[in-house]
Amino acid sequence: MEAFEKMKRKNIYLSTTPLGEALKLWKEKLSQSGLWSPLEAETVNVSESLGRVTSSPVSASISSPFYHASAMDGYAVRFHETFGASEKSPVRLAIGEQAIYVDTGDPMPELPAEGGEDIQSPFNAVVMVEDINITGESIEIIAPVTPWQNVRTVGEDIVATELITPESHTIRPVDMGAMLAGGITRVQVRKRPRVAIIPTGSEIVEPGSVLERGDIIEFSSHVLCGLVSEWGGVPIRLDIVSDDPAMLRKALLSAVEQADMVAVIAGASAGSEDYTEQTISGLGELILHGLAIKPGKPAMLGIVKNTPVIGLPGYPVASHLCFNLFARPYTMRRLGLEDRGFGFGSVRSRLSRQVASSLGSEEYLRVKVGKVNDNLIATPLGRGAGLMMSLVRADGLLTIPESSEGLAGGADVDIELLRPMEEIENTLVSIGSHDNSMDVLANFLHKRHPKFTLSSAHVGSMGGLMALRKNEAHIAPTHMLDEQTGDYNISFLKRLLPERNITLINLVHRTQGLMVVKGNPKGIKGLADLSRPEVTFINRQRGAGTRLLLDKELKELGIDPDKVSGYEREEYTHMAVASAVLTGISSTGLGVLSAANALGLDFIPIAKERYDLAIPTELLEDDRLKALIDIIRDDRNFRDAVNSLGGYDVSDMGKVMYES
Amino acid sequence: MEAFEKMKRKNIYLSTTPLGEALKLWKEKLSQSGLWSPLEAETVNVSESLGRVTSSPVSASISSPFYHASAMDGYAVRFHETFGASEKSPVRLAIGEQAIYVDTGDPMPELPAEGGEDIQSPFNAVVMVEDINITGESIEIIAPVTPWQNVRTVGEDIVATELITPESHTIRPVDMGAMLAGGITRVQVRKRPRVAIIPTGSEIVEPGSVLERGDIIEFSSHVLCGLVSEWGGVPIRLDIVSDDPAMLRKALLSAVEQADMVAVIAGASAGSEDYTEQTISGLGELILHGLAIKPGKPAMLGIVKNTPVIGLPGYPVASHLCFNLFARPYTMRRLGLEDRGFGFGSVRSRLSRQVASSLGSEEYLRVKVGKVNDNLIATPLGRGAGLMMSLVRADGLLTIPESSEGLAGGADVDIELLRPMEEIENTLVSIGSHDNSMDVLANFLHKRHPKFTLSSAHVGSMGGLMALRKNEAHIAPTHMLDEQTGDYNISFLKRLLPERNITLINLVHRTQGLMVVKGNPKGIKGLADLSRPEVTFINRQRGAGTRLLLDKELKELGIDPDKVSGYEREEYTHMAVASAVLTGISSTGLGVLSAANALGLDFIPIAKERYDLAIPTELLEDDRLKALIDIIRDDRNFRDAVNSLGGYDVSDMGKVMYES
Repeated sequence: MEAFEKMKRKNIYLSTTPLGEALKLWKEKLSQSGLWSPLEAETVNVSESLGRVTSSPVSASISSPFYHASAMDGYAVRFHETFGASEKSPVRLAIGEQAIYVDTGDPMPELPAEGGEDIQSPFNAVVMVEDINITGESIEIIAPVTPWQNVRTVGEDIVATELITPESHTIRPVDMGAMLAGGITRVQVRKRPRVAIIPTGSEIVEPGSVLERGDIIEFSSHVLCGLVSEWGGVPIRLDIVSDDPAMLRKALLSAVEQADMVAVIAGASAGSEDYTEQTISGLGELILHGLAIKPGKPAMLGIVKNTPVIGLPGYPVASHLCFNLFARPYTMRRLGLEDRGFGFGSVRSRLSRQVASSLGSEEYLRVKVGKVNDNLIATPLGRGAGLMMSLVRADGLLTIPESSEGLAGGADVDIELLRPMEEIENTLVSIGSHDNSMDVLANFLHKRHPKFTLSSAHVGSMGGLMALRKNEAHIAPTHMLDEQTGDYNISFLKRLLPERNITLINLVHRTQGLMVVKGNPKGIKGLADLSRPEVTFINRQRGAGTRLLLDKELKELGIDPDKVSGYEREEYTHMAVASAVLTGISSTGLGVLSAANALGLDFIPIAKERYDLAIPTELLEDDRLKALIDIIRDDRNFRDAVNSLGGYDVSDMGKVMYES
Repeated sequence: MEAFEKMKRKNIYLSTTPLGEALKLWKEKLSQSGLWSPLEAETVNVSESLGRVTSSPVSASISSPFYHASAMDGYAVRFHETFGASEKSPVRLAIGEQAIYVDTGDPMPELPAEGGEDIQSPFNAVVMVEDINITGESIEIIAPVTPWQNVRTVGEDIVATELITPESHTIRPVDMGAMLAGGITRVQVRKRPRVAIIPTGSEIVEPGSVLERGDIIEFSSHVLCGLVSEWGGVPIRLDIVSDDPAMLRKALLSAVEQADMVAVIAGASAGSEDYTEQTISGLGELILHGLAIKPGKPAMLGIVKNTPVIGLPGYPVASHLCFNLFARPYTMRRLGLEDRGFGFGSVRSRLSRQVASSLGSEEYLRVKVGKVNDNLIATPLGRGAGLMMSLVRADGLLTIPESSEGLAGGADVDIELLRPMEEIENTLVSIGSHDNSMDVLANFLHKRHPKFTLSSAHVGSMGGLMALRKNEAHIAPTHMLDEQTGDYNISFLKRLLPERNITLINLVHRTQGLMVVKGNPKGIKGLADLSRPEVTFINRQRGAGTRLLLDKELKELGIDPDKVSGYEREEYTHMAVASAVLTGISSTGLGVLSAANALGLDFIPIAKERYDLAIPTELLEDDRLKALIDIIRDDRNFRDAVNSLGGYDVSDMGKVMYES
């Protein structure tokens, strides 16, 4: 109550600053404090300098080679003594005086010339062993040599004082080689920025703790530490601080002592126990609180004891984004490097479907990017700030500007990539129905061909066929029952994709049924029980084959969907339905046996159905698809792995069911 | 002598195996020995797993969230108790019984429903604080809520058993986050392949040693160790082994004990002290010796005590190439990853000039790649196997097939990149005359704008203007004196580039003169001395402005170039000329004062000349060029740095001398 009143007084949401303005302010404030410039240098051994950034130009201290050296195995000679040599009148040179054996790399001999004076006439050419004959104590040469022939003269590779790498250069293995060759063994590099991360929250527990309801596993700090390492900084993960202003104050003071930047995770929004703002303003300067971005609105920026401090939102996707937007350019700058965004460049892509967005904040939408028939297609992923898996799955970020209410399907958009384009080009895009055997298939493909990845979007059978029609997918897994014919998939292909040549390959026959918690406390025996008032149901989304199956079965039983409690609540995967049943959201849901098995649920079988992969025929020769189909057809281990999930009949696995 | 005879007996060069065949054989032999499969797994903490490769699929052990949690700060309610709420007839719910305050992330309360039974009717929705009024001990709601509104239900992010990453996946920060969120704290990853490097050779010394003539600094092992680290392996650098078969045998036996692969540097060719072959065949199996590639011909492959052993050529470019070709795919394979080549993909590019190559070996040519007016141009770099700096400068490798005698200028070629395309696109290409001030400029550009790089090819003033004409360069530094007009550069532009709009910007006026060793032992006073027989000269290449200057001056003095000893010996840079003088190759050479200063030479001034940058006018708005010109015009530190080299007049620096 008190907390609530406090929030009301604080007017709940602070004004938000547009991102561009916030970045400008951040840079200005840090510049004023002398924090927007490269860190001082430190000296390290060249042999340990891989990946470090030079803080001054590196020039050779000696030439390489630093003496004239033979470039061949052969005899060192004086070129003027070979004048006139020919097949007919070879020149003979006395071994030990006029001709001295040298291995490749040996220094040119420094014998004084005849007369014993100083080296007025040095050895200045090498004759290859292949080009001479040995006769007694002499060698015979049949062609004259030119000055310095077959000799690596001083500085051939590197001349002393020559620039090897400029300042602000990230040292590669070959740079280390050239430095050492040029006589440099110690190199001045930028100190690595130390970035301290403080996770906060009384409900937060370390990974691996024995969990109780209400506990939240602290994982964001590990994500941020990983990012700092990737950027070239030194992450310092500090202990979890509970929601106590005095503790937070103490932790922040200790953090700014040991780090070049501090990020405080959570405590940034206006909740009842959010003390980050008051701690930063109490110890230093709060630059701003509230960003016009989504996710990431509650972020704050400050400076405490001449150390930049970022207050990050608690949700992992929001903290990941804000940390990238503010901590990354700072870390790069302190290393003397230019910020390179997320590091994989950006591509122009077609948006697969319409996206609405709210005016007044810039939204960062996670997307999958797929390359189908040379078109790049971006498909939006889940937008929740708490969906860590959406970042795992994301190929890129699409920014919807503050001033936009959304983007139309088919729009050309710029995607900032989160992984290399090459990986995206090696990814098979499956859009359609979900089945656990598809996850097994994804794993086998990546294991057998590590460069290929199978990415699945679960939009239901109907959505998959529509995606094929729009050239947005390589594969559409589908299990649509035609009520008229009793056959699967084929009539839908004919109706929805009349002009496309599609091959239908069977993956499995599978058993659908009602999932209930262990022991089946509500005594559910079949779909007829769905009309019982105390039985709540969890449905699949419109267009899902499982939903079509349910509707057909309810119709046959004469049950009005309006009478099914929970009919309107939709999930997108079998696993999500199973999870809803397990956790008491609903009494039951329709799905495959493998999902029930995975979560230890009981199962009442309803129907067996055919689950096929629809693939445009012209793509069957694509390397990625060939690799995938080979696994489906010939990999006994894959077959066994699918069988072991339970509820599958793999007798038709890999069989062509239809070609249009 | 004995050595030589031994070589003759060995028939000097072994038969060479084409690369494709060698790779196939390598893979087959390793497969037979069970060495061509991923290494066993080890278990590491997820928090320390960044960059490691999963050795099995990783699935969540718990759901995230693992309890139903509030997604908002607000009041948890039972949705059916809000039925009928409206502005006109708000519903009131008793705080503590029907409405319970929750912060974002708090678990949904588990109070039993009225009647004290089990949780038949759980709290199943949250009303945001913004949407309610508080009246005494109740909250007032003006709209009904839907089931599970504002609740993060169990598994919203991750459902227990869900696949987080497949096998053979390189772990990123976000993957660590999802694993920890899914209850995984330890993860099975592939062991990192340990690769031992043995440098050999009696002439080899550690970097930093006090050097004597004949010593060769051992740096290749550090390059190879760096590569192993970049590939994800563990490099083990072993001590230098001198050319002694017993010592090498001992070192190799010890290396195969501690590593998954061993590379022996040098001792691979047929020189007098090359024992690698006999050591490998003595201890195990020699698979092959001699590759039909250039550089890299003497490489050998073997297996000793079930450990692959590569015998690498001693020249650093050859060892770098062979190590990449054989050790990299092996290391990747043992990690369960696909070999990704040099890691930066390949591009189609136009070859700037003709390249001859010998039949019978596949040549790997190092090239610079520049993007000028949307064309990618590849320019060959030095081909010597000992030129470490050519690898530092290279942007990519061009492979000339075994069956080819060379490639024509202008040919479309595929370049395997050695750095990211983005870096190449941010590189300014300067082709033309060399001056030390250009190195200073390159360093300032990269320091001020770390994303931009200035790459210089030294082909002389004339070559630079030809490169501009062919759209192969952004900048051509030039200092060509028109003997008729006495003016610099302009008449050449008019003649050579009549149809192009070129802007000529002055960089410096500089002093050219004769460089001689300290004390000027030959008493050289001017160009007239070049006709003295005991004075040897080192020239610049045809097309160099300095060569034009020399020819004009010799003509005026009436000296026949045939009478200048060494006139035919050409170098491409002032520093190379200075180095040739310093090391006694020639008595003197013509060049700029800054080069003489850099190597501590004495200097006899001959002429002052104007050194301009010719830039196509349409490129002046290019971001890279704008950044460069800003430095030339306005950066006082740059001006001071150039001045400090000696011999420069910077009064016209940045001034436009001409626009066509």
